[in-house]
Amino acid sequence: MLSCGWLLALSLAALTGRTTGAVAYEQTERDCSLYPPYLPSTAVNTTLQLQELRERMLPLNISAYIIPGTDAHLSEYIAPRDARMAFMTGFTGSAGTAVVTQTKAALWTDSRYWVQAERQMDCNWELEKDVSIRNVAEWLISEVPSGSEIGFDPFLFSLSKSLFSTPPVSPVKSKMCVFAERSWQMKVEQIRNQMRDNPYKPTALLLSALDETAWLFNLRGSDIPYNPFFYSYTLLTIDEIWLFLHTVRVTEELKVYLNASCEGPLCVQLKSYESILDHLKTYVAQPDIKVWIGTEYTNYALYEVITPADKLMTSSYSPVLTTKAVKDETEQRILREAHVRDAVAVIQLLMWLEKTVPKGKETELTAAEYVNMCRGKQKDSRGPSFETISASGPNAALAHYRDGTTDITRTVHWGTPTALQKEAFTRVLMGNIEISRTIFPSGTRGVNMEMLGRRALWEVGLNYGHGTGHGVGNYFGVHEWPVGFQGNNIPFRAGMFTSIEPGYYKENDFGIRIEDVAVIIPVQTKYGQDYLTFDTVSLVPYDRKLIDTSLLSSEQLQWLNKYYKTIRRLLGPELDKQGLNEEKDWMFRNTEPFMASGSSASVCSSSLTLIVLPVALFHIV
Amino acid sequence: MLSCGWLLALSLAALTGRTTGAVAYEQTERDCSLYPPYLPSTAVNTTLQLQELRERMLPLNISAYIIPGTDAHLSEYIAPRDARMAFMTGFTGSAGTAVVTQTKAALWTDSRYWVQAERQMDCNWELEKDVSIRNVAEWLISEVPSGSEIGFDPFLFSLSKSLFSTPPVSPVKSKMCVFAERSWQMKVEQIRNQMRDNPYKPTALLLSALDETAWLFNLRGSDIPYNPFFYSYTLLTIDEIWLFLHTVRVTEELKVYLNASCEGPLCVQLKSYESILDHLKTYVAQPDIKVWIGTEYTNYALYEVITPADKLMTSSYSPVLTTKAVKDETEQRILREAHVRDAVAVIQLLMWLEKTVPKGKETELTAAEYVNMCRGKQKDSRGPSFETISASGPNAALAHYRDGTTDITRTVHWGTPTALQKEAFTRVLMGNIEISRTIFPSGTRGVNMEMLGRRALWEVGLNYGHGTGHGVGNYFGVHEWPVGFQGNNIPFRAGMFTSIEPGYYKENDFGIRIEDVAVIIPVQTKYGQDYLTFDTVSLVPYDRKLIDTSLLSSEQLQWLNKYYKTIRRLLGPELDKQGLNEEKDWMFRNTEPFMASGSSASVCSSSLTLIVLPVALFHIV
Repeated sequence: MLSCGWLLALSLAALTGRTTGAVAYEQTERDCSLYPPYLPSTAVNTTLQLQELRERMLPLNISAYIIPGTDAHLSEYIAPRDARMAFMTGFTGSAGTAVVTQTKAALWTDSRYWVQAERQMDCNWELEKDVSIRNVAEWLISEVPSGSEIGFDPFLFSLSKSLFSTPPVSPVKSKMCVFAERSWQMKVEQIRNQMRDNPYKPTALLLSALDETAWLFNLRGSDIPYNPFFYSYTLLTIDEIWLFLHTVRVTEELKVYLNASCEGPLCVQLKSYESILDHLKTYVAQPDIKVWIGTEYTNYALYEVITPADKLMTSSYSPVLTTKAVKDETEQRILREAHVRDAVAVIQLLMWLEKTVPKGKETELTAAEYVNMCRGKQKDSRGPSFETISASGPNAALAHYRDGTTDITRTVHWGTPTALQKEAFTRVLMGNIEISRTIFPSGTRGVNMEMLGRRALWEVGLNYGHGTGHGVGNYFGVHEWPVGFQGNNIPFRAGMFTSIEPGYYKENDFGIRIEDVAVIIPVQTKYGQDYLTFDTVSLVPYDRKLIDTSLLSSEQLQWLNKYYKTIRRLLGPELDKQGLNEEKDWMFRNTEPFMASGSSASVCSSSLTLIVLPVALFHIV
Repeated sequence: MLSCGWLLALSLAALTGRTTGAVAYEQTERDCSLYPPYLPSTAVNTTLQLQELRERMLPLNISAYIIPGTDAHLSEYIAPRDARMAFMTGFTGSAGTAVVTQTKAALWTDSRYWVQAERQMDCNWELEKDVSIRNVAEWLISEVPSGSEIGFDPFLFSLSKSLFSTPPVSPVKSKMCVFAERSWQMKVEQIRNQMRDNPYKPTALLLSALDETAWLFNLRGSDIPYNPFFYSYTLLTIDEIWLFLHTVRVTEELKVYLNASCEGPLCVQLKSYESILDHLKTYVAQPDIKVWIGTEYTNYALYEVITPADKLMTSSYSPVLTTKAVKDETEQRILREAHVRDAVAVIQLLMWLEKTVPKGKETELTAAEYVNMCRGKQKDSRGPSFETISASGPNAALAHYRDGTTDITRTVHWGTPTALQKEAFTRVLMGNIEISRTIFPSGTRGVNMEMLGRRALWEVGLNYGHGTGHGVGNYFGVHEWPVGFQGNNIPFRAGMFTSIEPGYYKENDFGIRIEDVAVIIPVQTKYGQDYLTFDTVSLVPYDRKLIDTSLLSSEQLQWLNKYYKTIRRLLGPELDKQGLNEEKDWMFRNTEPFMASGSSASVCSSSLTLIVLPVALFHIV
């Protein structure tokens, strides 16, 4: 059997000293209030695209056309072939919706991407910052004459976000391979048991999200950059399995693996990707059937054909996604081990930066190259899970620098941090710790705890405009729904992995994020049963000179020192094994226990080789 | 003009010492596993009601009939005439749904009421503890043959909770009176402005919740015990106002006040309560209309007639409820002053209990009578807002003792508290403090902060099964939606009042609740704008001997001492004014500052006259 590997990425958000010397600022964002407008070199001219779209809308009597940033599987990250919104707007962020009328063009995206949008869009576009469905609807109502038509592609809208046709994407032939955890036959039976136990008695389950099919059959592809998926749908019934994909890419070996030459309950019948709609229609036309769909990842085109209503059964997420969210022991071990190896690579980067930054030659890009090289040397590495994000100075204020987040983020400083930088960093760290150390009943929802990540910032009137964490996949995409701290995430159970990543961003100045991955584990309490807490599996120390220990509560300080002890215990032997003595010294220096409030400054400066760098790095990717 | 007054109620949940002497326990809950079943004296025999209902269901081919515990206005508290669920089941709690089939009868209610339901229901009924719509639906699916009918009264189901006919209630003639804050004409224009500003351009607003109409016209009635409401609906359009109520009760004076003899935009046209459905049908039949309804409080019968869909506009709450939630300066002052006077009455009760409990003659009922008497003496008192709840021993484990909560709750102990009682009390108090001292951005939702009320309990595996707080009305019901800490409450804004009321209940042993009312106020932060915090307006100290200060963080201790200083500052002059010297001494003794961790025990015992009471009170109301 083939195997796929995968390692974790790092985002390096660098604070810059305020003593910056001779750096010339280019104005990096558009200014449409000038005449002629100011456009930075990163802006894309969209006049021609808009003109052509508007001409095509006229004969169809479409007053507004909606272009979402997703694909037919409602993927968070999409292949270039699906980048419709980016083609039309210039904006390449991973979240957004564009709307074009004959006279206006507007893009909605959330605060993570506002700076990026102002850099990439020309003045044909207005940027709308309130991303609620309500706001989009109000905009449409005010711009579109009543009685006229609004156009959209039903394959690109999920039910849960649906306001409102592109044919399915053309065949792709990237290599597919098998990554075996449990046998797929066991997984299929596990899901079928949940179908049988359900009181609504569904006869079939439709899987639309790409990671659902990939997980169910232990298959991986590379149709989408940095995400090991392949385009597919699955229709799983109690006694049959239909897999819809580009069949030309399925090797004989894979056909044997999938048991593709029969029609029994554990035979996978392969169908072409394009035939899903017709097949579903035929299935639905039969009597006594009921199709279970997860509304978050099923597009409107497929939903539409499941009529009448009593043939449909919905939940926010399919049982595949909720089952997959809880990792078994083997999966947990694999993820933990990957973090040990990744910590080695990240520490090598931090050491290298400490040494080379004073020479003034390194840019964010060469830093990213260096860490990817370090990671490539680690066992089982198959390349970064994301384009490595490395940002300094004004760029650090973009929480998502290009089009991804990562899954460990450390913020470092090579100058003398300002009081605000140090306070903000410490309060972000306090948020990370407060979530990490919390004990809660099994089944508590992340959205009801995520304010713990913000509370220390709120206390002094600071905040951040992004989520506080997302599920983390095992040999999957880094962002793995439905686990996380948002309103539409499922309750926490033991065995789930999530990132914890509060931050703070001061526009055009500096940015901070501290991101760790944690696994949810059972915890013994004095009186109760079935309580959980977080166990941090990322193993890289935080920049000591940015921590003001006088702000930390004694519980927070205690947590931090215990975490540093864990880093020493788990990373020491690995560094020994790899013969990395200098790295081990660095790690021990940076994980010295902190003393209680007040005394930390001296501990800190005596245990660190401070590199004061008055000229910071500025580089726009 | 007439005026109505209203004061705040107290719940006194008493912990009992474990050294209890000669008290004989009656088994207070039913036991249907015995033959014959054991039924306590509080259980209601429901055999006849059930038999009659089942006979009536047969000819209509209804397999299941659903009986909710609410009225046509989806009120939380209902008049006896509307107590359909209680009549059928025996259970009198304020939340529940009953379902009857030919062979089964089941009641769903939440954890606050499980003990009460086990005491009041006979063995005809099964108690279902999972109150999710999903669970009710699953029960129905498993019990009802497919293709058969399920019966229900569309007037008794809100849209937001609707699964699927009683005529409207008979005329009532309780007195109505005017309570003037702002003029109702100003309020009407304020709401009409929100209608005009709405992009969906509603032409009319339908008000179904009783407190909506009461607030809009500054009117109060007494159709529902302890809630100053009268049965009514309002249809407010841009240029007309129709008020539906039992017109016989409207005096000439009220007609003048309401400007009821004309048809202009500020004339209130009075219609009979029963005519709402027909009137709404006629209105909806006109062209170019759109009716705005709040789905939480509109019943299905009214919703049904607003067709086609483009004549309907929905939000969870009407603009009347969201506007009413933010109190103006006058309203805030009135509520704050009421709390000062109420604190005097509550302190008098606590002192009286300290003195009389050792004599062993007082029951919970006489305590309730005493506090009502104290309150009656306070200025503007018009009787308790709720039946005063006073519970001790096993009864204290019922968070809602009869059918209401109150809005200040203090838990006191006259014996020697056990280690668990003291720890649980302290952790409940920590929860109360953690919410109260939190600083958060304006617009944060209560549901995202309420875990702060539970966190200290969770740490040792304890929890509670009820909400953490609800909005508080100004001369209205004590529970005032849509403010509070639940998922369907609106975001917090300055000027809203909410209760903060974590608790802990050990079944058949003891119960703790600490409830305060707080107003949300703006707070100055170091860096940010538009941040809020809570300002506690309840002014009664907590039982010192139940507080283990070694568990409190220094921030919590600091908050507590500052709160006690506030009590002294606001209550001292009031007690002086009323010449209550003994009460003032008691208040000062009980608000002495706490020392930092460890030293508290001695402070506590030297500043308190401890009354050790080995025999506790047991009385079942």
